[in-house]
Amino acid sequence: MHRDQLARACGEAMWRGDRVSQWFGMRLEEVRAGYARMSMDVTEQMVNAHNTCHGGAIFTLADSTFGYACNSHNQNALAASCSIEYLAPAYLGEVLTAVGVEQARAGRQGIYDVRVTNHRGELIALFRGKSVTVRGHLVEVQ
Amino acid sequence: MHRDQLARACGEAMWRGDRVSQWFGMRLEEVRAGYARMSMDVTEQMVNAHNTCHGGAIFTLADSTFGYACNSHNQNALAASCSIEYLAPAYLGEVLTAVGVEQARAGRQGIYDVRVTNHRGELIALFRGKSVTVRGHLVEVQ
Amino acid sequence: MHRDQLARACGEAMWRGDRVSQWFGMRLEEVRAGYARMSMDVTEQMVNAHNTCHGGAIFTLADSTFGYACNSHNQNALAASCSIEYLAPAYLGEVLTAVGVEQARAGRQGIYDVRVTNHRGELIALFRGKSVTVRGHLVEVQ
Amino acid sequence: MHRDQLARACGEAMWRGDRVSQWFGMRLEEVRAGYARMSMDVTEQMVNAHNTCHGGAIFTLADSTFGYACNSHNQNALAASCSIEYLAPAYLGEVLTAVGVEQARAGRQGIYDVRVTNHRGELIALFRGKSVTVRGHLVEVQ
Repeated sequence: MHRDQLARACGEAMWRGDRVSQWFGMRLEEVRAGYARMSMDVTEQMVNAHNTCHGGAIFTLADSTFGYACNSHNQNALAASCSIEYLAPAYLGEVLTAVGVEQARAGRQGIYDVRVTNHRGELIALFRGKSVTVRGHLVEVQ
Repeated sequence: MHRDQLARACGEAMWRGDRVSQWFGMRLEEVRAGYARMSMDVTEQMVNAHNTCHGGAIFTLADSTFGYACNSHNQNALAASCSIEYLAPAYLGEVLTAVGVEQARAGRQGIYDVRVTNHRGELIALFRGKSVTVRGHLVEVQ
Repeated sequence: MHRDQLARACGEAMWRGDRVSQWFGMRLEEVRAGYARMSMDVTEQMVNAHNTCHGGAIFTLADSTFGYACNSHNQNALAASCSIEYLAPAYLGEVLTAVGVEQARAGRQGIYDVRVTNHRGELIALFRGKSVTVRGHLVEVQ
Repeated sequence: MHRDQLARACGEAMWRGDRVSQWFGMRLEEVRAGYARMSMDVTEQMVNAHNTCHGGAIFTLADSTFGYACNSHNQNALAASCSIEYLAPAYLGEVLTAVGVEQARAGRQGIYDVRVTNHRGELIALFRGKSVTVRGHLVEVQ
């Protein structure tokens, strides 16, 4: 199986058990080897009294995207640490897109950068996640 | 008003508009000047197929706690950046507690550390948030 | 003056007062708007008993590169925070190159990513720096 | 041997090969289990044209202190990642002190926080380092 096909199969397998991303109404738009793209609408539940989106919701979108990207090689991987820089507020009704790209893999660790933008293409946040591989695979490959 | 009383009043004012924390079932247990403590049960919606809690949910608990701590001086403050280190998994049914403590304030910026533990006292994650103050207050003080 | 010319002029002005980079034997190889590239040999003074380079020296190379990139718009800028992920050791005698690229500017803050590689092109470290602009310029522009 | 005695012995063994810390004129003032304290004068070589200390020098002091703290259990440990928040400038002639304290150890990883203050007790920077243990010991214990 081609590595991007394998990545897609990993993404589909993860998605079935990924209740958080579904709970947030995220959409898994694309998975390739070392890459994932997701989107999410900013809903009533995610905003505070000023209709600005809670940082935790933006983080969760970026974190899920990181999760799909770092598990795209069919080797189970966990988040070890993450950091996020908030650059502009997101508001109720906006559509956020997160694009995660692998920056490095060395031994068991991987580094992934995720950019979160709104539907006007404005940069909302930059996220960096570090993953560690563990035993196990996402899909069976014959 | 004493600064810890003021902090509590700020916490109550924030809580009313804080739909994310309520959506996650968080409890705001204590707010003092430069300090906040919250707790949250790990529910079905927060776990993946292996019943381990999504990092985004742990982050969101820490991030909310940071939000109450950095807004406890009755000066509006926003998260500028955050980082989290995941140290042990959290599982379905566990109760997580986050304690946020101010480390520094310098000019408009503040640094807050949040420790997330489970109900057995095991350390689940360490979070560090950086805040920036903006115009506006949370409560009117006569 | 073209923005890349201005960036070079800023770099030259900074270099004259930048004793740390000179003390470490760094070379300022290129400055453009939002971009800088520096290199450094790993010398005896930078290594421990196993001839591996101290993280502080790798950080300092990345940090200087970040400094040139974030000051390349002729607006004084300071480092507010930095993070580094070490991916492979660097050894005595190796030549390290750091390339810093602007990721975002929003208000007074900027985000810059720096990749440090050795002379075989292997990735040694990934660095992310956040800058804040302050009053003052690096060069006089007529 | 008592664990603090062992920590001191580890510190002495590391110090002999630690050319960077010596090159910067650092003093290793105290090592205990999970703890280290170092100090450093801000010298001519560390400052820019405005006599403010280069972030790389402050980082290197914190990073060395982290190194002594995370190696204090007589199990070789390496820095995996570090982050630093700069809170106030340090100037030529000031004496900086870094105190590193273990926050967590879980499996092979450890988290250490380092506070850098000047001789008036003002907070200059907050540093967080993550270590990973590797094979080997610093001292032979009979």
